[in-house]
Amino acid sequence: MIREIPAKELDTESFIKEKVEEIKSRVGDGQAINALSGGVDSSAVTLLGHRALGDQLKTVFVENGLMRANEAEQVVDFFRDLGVKVEVVAAQEEFFSALKGVTDPEEKREAITQTFYRQVFGRLVRESGAKHLLQGTILTDVDETVAGIKRQHNVFEQLGIDPQEAFGYHILEPLIQLRKDGVRKLGKALGLPQELFQRIPFPGPALAARVIGEVTPERIDTVRKATEVVERLLSDCGAFQYLAILHEDRVTGMRESRRDFGQQIEVRCWNSIDARTATPTPLPFAILEQMAEEIVYAVPGVVSVTYNITSKPPSTIEAV
Amino acid sequence: MIREIPAKELDTESFIKEKVEEIKSRVGDGQAINALSGGVDSSAVTLLGHRALGDQLKTVFVENGLMRANEAEQVVDFFRDLGVKVEVVAAQEEFFSALKGVTDPEEKREAITQTFYRQVFGRLVRESGAKHLLQGTILTDVDETVAGIKRQHNVFEQLGIDPQEAFGYHILEPLIQLRKDGVRKLGKALGLPQELFQRIPFPGPALAARVIGEVTPERIDTVRKATEVVERLLSDCGAFQYLAILHEDRVTGMRESRRDFGQQIEVRCWNSIDARTATPTPLPFAILEQMAEEIVYAVPGVVSVTYNITSKPPSTIEAV
Repeated sequence: MIREIPAKELDTESFIKEKVEEIKSRVGDGQAINALSGGVDSSAVTLLGHRALGDQLKTVFVENGLMRANEAEQVVDFFRDLGVKVEVVAAQEEFFSALKGVTDPEEKREAITQTFYRQVFGRLVRESGAKHLLQGTILTDVDETVAGIKRQHNVFEQLGIDPQEAFGYHILEPLIQLRKDGVRKLGKALGLPQELFQRIPFPGPALAARVIGEVTPERIDTVRKATEVVERLLSDCGAFQYLAILHEDRVTGMRESRRDFGQQIEVRCWNSIDARTATPTPLPFAILEQMAEEIVYAVPGVVSVTYNITSKPPSTIEAV
Repeated sequence: MIREIPAKELDTESFIKEKVEEIKSRVGDGQAINALSGGVDSSAVTLLGHRALGDQLKTVFVENGLMRANEAEQVVDFFRDLGVKVEVVAAQEEFFSALKGVTDPEEKREAITQTFYRQVFGRLVRESGAKHLLQGTILTDVDETVAGIKRQHNVFEQLGIDPQEAFGYHILEPLIQLRKDGVRKLGKALGLPQELFQRIPFPGPALAARVIGEVTPERIDTVRKATEVVERLLSDCGAFQYLAILHEDRVTGMRESRRDFGQQIEVRCWNSIDARTATPTPLPFAILEQMAEEIVYAVPGVVSVTYNITSKPPSTIEAV
């Protein structure tokens, strides 16, 4: 049974001190490794780990080709400013080849998870020689696994590391007593930049979750360009979340005064407290029209833009 | 060279008298037939023809299964009130079987045209014994054929009637000197009900043009139900045209608290003068939300509704 530390009871100073000691004593003079996604959990673990281990901790950012524009650079820059070196691992080809021909949303998710753990991160762990893995698991992840919402993950199995061999490996989960609000409080105390807390939710499968149908480099590039416009125009709108989705359906459009088929982008912008229910944000019509205009201008092949006007339920926040 | 009669020069009383005499003298004591779609051209021809020929003219309404809710009944009722009997010919199965498996928009159009002329109307003409066909061709149709926008139609060939045999047939096109505004003026003088002039534009392939992907009875029923909601809520909005489109893409939704895939309806509502350019109507957000709510309530399987926010160009009015 894990003892929860509620955010309001969290004394960040003594928590950091305690965890830094714990990590130090467990790793000793060994090597550790962790994967940074840029989310608040993995960012907090990265800072805690570097405080404890310095250069004994290798931090990698896996570039899966599915991230938003400049996402890897932004994360690397954030951490460079904090004195932490992050190694970007180019793995775009591995992810796109795993996603080739896959159209079912669940199978897409699975292909991304498998490629990350079994192929890319598994290889990095073995090659690094590190025997200690730092993970940003929080209490909510544990609850959801127990409740059957998330699958039970045996990390070593996921990494393709033989259970025999796995005896030599150790998992460290320094955030496991915290929930999201506690991690935010901790992150702030560790000096994480504001931008990381203010970021709107972004799904695990990244832009692959924003493409209906097959995920290809071209289709990710299309939805990435549309996402840039949407995030730029809506960054101050106060909504809970906003996103662009690339449809598979083709619709009629005009190119150089001729009828031709083109692609459609769907924009969603949600008002919500906790994502369990949500309503479409009543954006001014001028903003909607400007957004459509900029998207068809900036994104090759797109001739049509829609705005989602349904509530959740029966809709969901994401489409895939 | 056809002499145009501009609307403002059209003396409806003498035009009607002249055309009635002309039709009478050409048909004599023979039999004539015409197909009524409910549009203003075929409606005006039907009234002119019946004034000239009475029961010698057989008027048919081909129920292709692709019309909006109650459309056949409404047209039959309109004309019954005007003393004209319209025979509804049930041909749904022929159209749906021609459309089965067809997903390309041009092929869908072609399947509908071929089924109408070659199969259904061709058979009706032969079975009726009528040697005179009344058609609502207007001058704009002729212009567009000459300009290559519309295909050159040899009506007899379309009807599957052998050119040898066709010597016995006659085509009468009493509206050929008029354009749309002239036909409207004529229709009014002939006593056509206001509803027929106020109707928003509706495409030839009917609801088949409002379905992305395969046209099946179930999918037509889905878009028909959505169309009912959209036309009811927007009938007073003053827009040029409004429509509902059924997408082929599936999106995530919630059914009975569980994640499940559902269908998406896209609503378009256009401000336009002549359909050459158009902008999305800035409907109040409360109307958009109400429309989405009523659609997901009234249309089984639909979990998501969007509103198109793109201008034409690069969008087009219809999607298929």
